[in-house]
Amino acid sequence: MLGIDPGLTRCGVGVVDVAADRSARLVHVGVVRSPADARIERRLAAIAAGIREVLAAHQPDVLAVERVFAQQNRNTVMGTAQASGIALLLAAEHGIPAATHTPTEVKAAITGYGGADKRQVQTMVARILRLDELPKPADAADALALALCHAWRGDGSAPTAAQGALTPAQRAWAEAERGARR
Amino acid sequence: MLGIDPGLTRCGVGVVDVAADRSARLVHVGVVRSPADARIERRLAAIAAGIREVLAAHQPDVLAVERVFAQQNRNTVMGTAQASGIALLLAAEHGIPAATHTPTEVKAAITGYGGADKRQVQTMVARILRLDELPKPADAADALALALCHAWRGDGSAPTAAQGALTPAQRAWAEAERGARR
Repeated sequence: MLGIDPGLTRCGVGVVDVAADRSARLVHVGVVRSPADARIERRLAAIAAGIREVLAAHQPDVLAVERVFAQQNRNTVMGTAQASGIALLLAAEHGIPAATHTPTEVKAAITGYGGADKRQVQTMVARILRLDELPKPADAADALALALCHAWRGDGSAPTAAQGALTPAQRAWAEAERGARR
Repeated sequence: MLGIDPGLTRCGVGVVDVAADRSARLVHVGVVRSPADARIERRLAAIAAGIREVLAAHQPDVLAVERVFAQQNRNTVMGTAQASGIALLLAAEHGIPAATHTPTEVKAAITGYGGADKRQVQTMVARILRLDELPKPADAADALALALCHAWRGDGSAPTAAQGALTPAQRAWAEAERGARR
């Protein structure tokens, strides 16, 4: 599961492996950056290159992106929306489904409370992933939270292992078990 | 010069050839669509495929996109911003510079008046390109206007033929002429 906290200057990426029992393991966490003084098309290309690298290295089954609202901080919201569009496009081009979740959905899924603050979310993400300290960089914790949120909630169209459906590997295993019992 | 009026449901694309004397010729005009009931990542992939087709077919030197503002129509502005991000990314991936212009800049460049209405812009675009009727589909006229605006105004960093600089073809011609005179 790849979570993306979209941004033009800093784009958080987090990969988690979530089992059917909802337990989760940290696979990768990082931030893709683009220089603020570069041309906009070069900045978006840098973000795309960083996301492509993560897709190639970790081959996630799903990509989840934070949903951007026009009402958010006006100075950066357009760049954030453009970065989110890039992330969604790359999911399609990688042949995996994408999903979007609002910050409130993410907070509620992770902490049980949609109004939780950043620190509470980070603390819960660290606890869920059994990390000794808060995930770093701090921005990237949001990407991990998003990935966990999607693994647990889904988007109603792409069932995940943690929602009771089987992954291809689990399906193969179940079939092998049935075969052995015959 | 490729102009793009970004949108998720309808994305206008217009290609014009602008000479050093500012005269312009229509090369291509069209609309890239995506089905409103498709998943967002599929929609963005359809828009990307349509823009890539135009880039491959017409090999423009520059891509100009309408600048999107958060204050615009809230229901569609995020999809429009995402589509504009895709267009900008594709420019970088195609190895050409991109530029953005506001609707007011485009109207002022085409009609001489930043508050011109849609019909006035369409009429002027038809006149500039010496078309017998208004460019169709109407949405795509905005993309043509954007391409013309950029050819005439530039963005201060990528001089265009119409601003006095020579295109590679013009440079080659000038050199051949100089060679013949020796």
